[in-house]
Amino acid sequence: MEAMKAKKAVKATDCAVGEMLEVARKQGIETVWDRYARQIPQCGFGDSGLCCRNCTQGPCRIDPFGDGPAAGVCGITADSMVARNLIRAIAAGAASHSGHAKHLAHVLKKVAAGKLTDYSVKDENKLRAVATRLGIPTEGKSVQELAAAVASAALEEFSEREEPLAWAATTLTSSQVEKLGGLGVLPAGIDSAISEILQRTTLGVDADPVNLLLGGVKGAVADFAGCHLGTDLADILFGTPTPVFSEANMGVLKENAVNIALHGHNPVVSELIVVAARQEDILAQAKSAGAEGINLVGICCTGNEVLMRQGVAPLTHSLSQEMPILTGALDAIVVDYQCVYPSLANIADCYGTKLITTMDIAKIPGAVHMAIEEERGLEQAKEIIKLAVERFKARKGAPTCIPQVKQKVIAGFSTEAIIGALSKLNAADPLKPLIDNIVNGNIQGVVLFAGCNNVKVPQDANFIAIVKELAKRDVLMLATGCGAGALARHGLLTSEATMEYAGPGLKAVFTAIGEANGLGGPLPLVLHVGSCVDNSRPVDIAVALANKLGVDVNQLPVAASAPEFKAEKAVAIGTWAVTLGLPTHLGLVPPVLGSKLVTRVLTQDIKDITGGYFLVETDPLLAAEKIFDALQERRQKLNIGTRRW
Amino acid sequence: MEAMKAKKAVKATDCAVGEMLEVARKQGIETVWDRYARQIPQCGFGDSGLCCRNCTQGPCRIDPFGDGPAAGVCGITADSMVARNLIRAIAAGAASHSGHAKHLAHVLKKVAAGKLTDYSVKDENKLRAVATRLGIPTEGKSVQELAAAVASAALEEFSEREEPLAWAATTLTSSQVEKLGGLGVLPAGIDSAISEILQRTTLGVDADPVNLLLGGVKGAVADFAGCHLGTDLADILFGTPTPVFSEANMGVLKENAVNIALHGHNPVVSELIVVAARQEDILAQAKSAGAEGINLVGICCTGNEVLMRQGVAPLTHSLSQEMPILTGALDAIVVDYQCVYPSLANIADCYGTKLITTMDIAKIPGAVHMAIEEERGLEQAKEIIKLAVERFKARKGAPTCIPQVKQKVIAGFSTEAIIGALSKLNAADPLKPLIDNIVNGNIQGVVLFAGCNNVKVPQDANFIAIVKELAKRDVLMLATGCGAGALARHGLLTSEATMEYAGPGLKAVFTAIGEANGLGGPLPLVLHVGSCVDNSRPVDIAVALANKLGVDVNQLPVAASAPEFKAEKAVAIGTWAVTLGLPTHLGLVPPVLGSKLVTRVLTQDIKDITGGYFLVETDPLLAAEKIFDALQERRQKLNIGTRRW
Repeated sequence: MEAMKAKKAVKATDCAVGEMLEVARKQGIETVWDRYARQIPQCGFGDSGLCCRNCTQGPCRIDPFGDGPAAGVCGITADSMVARNLIRAIAAGAASHSGHAKHLAHVLKKVAAGKLTDYSVKDENKLRAVATRLGIPTEGKSVQELAAAVASAALEEFSEREEPLAWAATTLTSSQVEKLGGLGVLPAGIDSAISEILQRTTLGVDADPVNLLLGGVKGAVADFAGCHLGTDLADILFGTPTPVFSEANMGVLKENAVNIALHGHNPVVSELIVVAARQEDILAQAKSAGAEGINLVGICCTGNEVLMRQGVAPLTHSLSQEMPILTGALDAIVVDYQCVYPSLANIADCYGTKLITTMDIAKIPGAVHMAIEEERGLEQAKEIIKLAVERFKARKGAPTCIPQVKQKVIAGFSTEAIIGALSKLNAADPLKPLIDNIVNGNIQGVVLFAGCNNVKVPQDANFIAIVKELAKRDVLMLATGCGAGALARHGLLTSEATMEYAGPGLKAVFTAIGEANGLGGPLPLVLHVGSCVDNSRPVDIAVALANKLGVDVNQLPVAASAPEFKAEKAVAIGTWAVTLGLPTHLGLVPPVLGSKLVTRVLTQDIKDITGGYFLVETDPLLAAEKIFDALQERRQKLNIGTRRW
Repeated sequence: MEAMKAKKAVKATDCAVGEMLEVARKQGIETVWDRYARQIPQCGFGDSGLCCRNCTQGPCRIDPFGDGPAAGVCGITADSMVARNLIRAIAAGAASHSGHAKHLAHVLKKVAAGKLTDYSVKDENKLRAVATRLGIPTEGKSVQELAAAVASAALEEFSEREEPLAWAATTLTSSQVEKLGGLGVLPAGIDSAISEILQRTTLGVDADPVNLLLGGVKGAVADFAGCHLGTDLADILFGTPTPVFSEANMGVLKENAVNIALHGHNPVVSELIVVAARQEDILAQAKSAGAEGINLVGICCTGNEVLMRQGVAPLTHSLSQEMPILTGALDAIVVDYQCVYPSLANIADCYGTKLITTMDIAKIPGAVHMAIEEERGLEQAKEIIKLAVERFKARKGAPTCIPQVKQKVIAGFSTEAIIGALSKLNAADPLKPLIDNIVNGNIQGVVLFAGCNNVKVPQDANFIAIVKELAKRDVLMLATGCGAGALARHGLLTSEATMEYAGPGLKAVFTAIGEANGLGGPLPLVLHVGSCVDNSRPVDIAVALANKLGVDVNQLPVAASAPEFKAEKAVAIGTWAVTLGLPTHLGLVPPVLGSKLVTRVLTQDIKDITGGYFLVETDPLLAAEKIFDALQERRQKLNIGTRRW
């Protein structure tokens, strides 16, 4: 009990965050941890999924111990109530990822129509590859024509059509597509799948918990398509990432520079700020204000986007997003949408930091709102930088307290970059070295780390512990989103970490690849594959492996882990990971314990259908154990050598 | 206090329901009222909108009295939390109505393609009128061609396009369209507006309560378009209603007939059952089982659909949907979706009644599931009837307890039927008699009653009290959905009720219209305009009046009332009623009291923007008073005679 309390008292494992928490304490600044403390005890009904507010005869609650009501007013049971709540979260997650993708599709459409001067197709190869995958004839077509065709195909994904989603049907294995179709969970439209979930969860529609969960799976497949679409279009518009070196954590702030944090998820604004910040006139403004330059840094997944493509240093992530303001050195935070704590406004106000919202669907009271119009985006990006310069002027000379904590980072591992790196070992058959090393046991399996931080877990602790444990067991690891951020801030996206933590097999393989690619050392211990919308990148690799081996994804020694998830988007991603056949670890208990049936379906029964399943384990070392066991189970079935640990 | 308790103890004003409740008590059958009693006390946080489960850092709760946490873990404030919850309900409502409409659009598309034999275009005039309104050239076009064009236009409404929704832009006044466009709340797609709400309400997106509410308004406009689309397509496929006589309440059950209730919302299945039930071979089966025939009856809005078009007797509605099973005489309940209590399965099981679900998105454990395929719908309808015949055979001779309670009903008042009735007074200018009588004060205004029953209100009590009070004040009243059902079961959709309750002005006008139309008496006291999806019909009339008078809808003495609402659909409808300029009464307090700001915006501030506003009053007589005052306020501004009461 005392040990539990002590564990709970630890807020973060990142010492930069620790320093800032001390500042917050001294200055009486309320943080996310304070607000969480005030929420305890949290509602057990909501926490177990047994709260329903889907009509005004409620709110209804069901007693999980059988002492109180056994059904809602309408007669809904615990099983269905839990399932309904869960799949509404999936719908919200899918709406978020695909809203992001839809936004990019509109930009690409305008680019194709020649309406935008500040955006262009940066990666023609990717455009052609995506078009080819979609079955759009590319020969003799101009970039504009192809961009128009791909944008049009993208926008068609959202409405309901006769065919299944192209971004699912053309990206998965044929047996996956067949299986999803057979289950009736291959959506004919992203937005229509989302709306369908809302209808089926409203009063008096679907009361069958398993049917509801299948509806959620359909929404999750829509989410996968939305994610993949978002990644494809971002790569086309802004370039497909290639390995890039940077630094991470609050030590990247510069007292004498104009520090601007790019926060949110969509690169559509931040990429223009990167362009603007590099222009002479803007630099001159910063210098005439007495700054040594403009220092762009990233927060959350907008941070990941500009890290992957532009090498912008990640400042911090998720749970600790309030902290950099307390340094006094952050001049502006420019946000688009998703995972932006509204509390930023109050704290920014205390310190004079400019908080700038840029999207009409995401305003924050107290922030400066500048709705970005893509037609004059660069001009607006410059106006935003000017606001930051103003703030720099006002703070110049005042003391700052920047934690002297930063780590080297290697990022930029898009699917193409990974294949590219492998091709240096075998140009004719780049996947062969990977397969050979999985088969020979140098690599025991592949694990993708995804998802957020969550205030209920000491920040980053689960990520770090699991990664270190799996590294010594020779597991190849990839990471996205705030998970990748956590690893970046702890120095685990480096060659040095590979040298320190990787088991002999993994170290040998990563050294061979690193040296063949002129990295001067092994690949970093974990490959940063992008923002949370980019979770489809590892699927592409898994699908390629499965197709090459003539097996399905659910037979490969591949797993996923979201050890500190919080957002509804993570619920959607986790569900499609399971749907696509991956054992998927969750480091917190999702709000489903109110239904034994739903819990059993998600953790056991679904394995017989998709091959994937949720593996819930809050203890990180046990989680590593169980993930490793899941990989071994797959190895055994494939009849390749297994290893006991 | 004692009076309050006594009031609470009254479950329903409908004496047939009272009889059945006594049966339930004796036989130990659990009803919706029992489940409600067990839910008390309900959660005050949820009830005031101050509960958030939108990420796994929660559940969060905010103390409305300022003693506990003032924000969620992410920093979300009470205002934004309340607004987010409210607009998610609007999104779910819009998804439900428009899902229903989309379903019909797919049927129409198949009809146009000649793929269905059991469906056809029943109302070519309506098809041509809708096409014309949409700007689709009709001259020389075949029914098939037009059906294809309208179905295609309908399906396009769901995806995001360049233009605003056709079903909003072509059905509202031009100044309404302009105003909505100016506010940024005219959606470019129904499903996309729904998804947008989900994204903006997820963790860290929109934190501005007013901006969130505007997002909700956009969703509500999408809901309006979805409703209008649903009505238009149902009229095209199944016929536009014209006045029809029937009977209502449980006394319509026949001990010696095969009694089949049609329940849910979409006529797509029930219309085929009506066809099947009239076919000789099916009748012969029933007769050979010893039945005197097949007796179709309706529940909720599927009941309204088949009442309006086929004269099928409404059995009961909403809150009392469990009751008819207790008569022992109900052989089958065939449900599609929405507002179907899952509890029906248990009760049906106790009595041997067949509960048949027909839609894949709406299954109920314990029910027989027969997914209707439109390609062989009639055949399946016959199979469903056979199940009911089987059950009749099994119960034949066993005692039943059918309450001998029924009322005459006149229904079928589509927009076209109302205009048709008025045209008997003035063929050249049908709206003139209505306008003249509003101006001369014979009619003080127009009120639309909509929405559900709610277990928190003695069933139907608010509808009955308000209608009787407004009737004597010469208010012309329309009703839809379970509201219309409440009035039907209480004999208020009759000429006799007009004679008994209408004030002199209203009586004179309704008598003149009734006689001109050969009704042999006045129009019924309240005009039944359809199911809850048909709430757009009264808007059409209001828009026609506004256009003719050169004013806007928000200047007309027209109001809406949902005195016993419960479903998320009702939240969506109420919001668009306010958006389109109507004072809109709610007889229960929606879950917004946790935010003074949201409460004020919805009840006051929005009046300055749209002219409409929510008027929340739980006491029905005070509600009638306030609705009447709202009409008088409009009359005064129009400078037509006002009346004090």
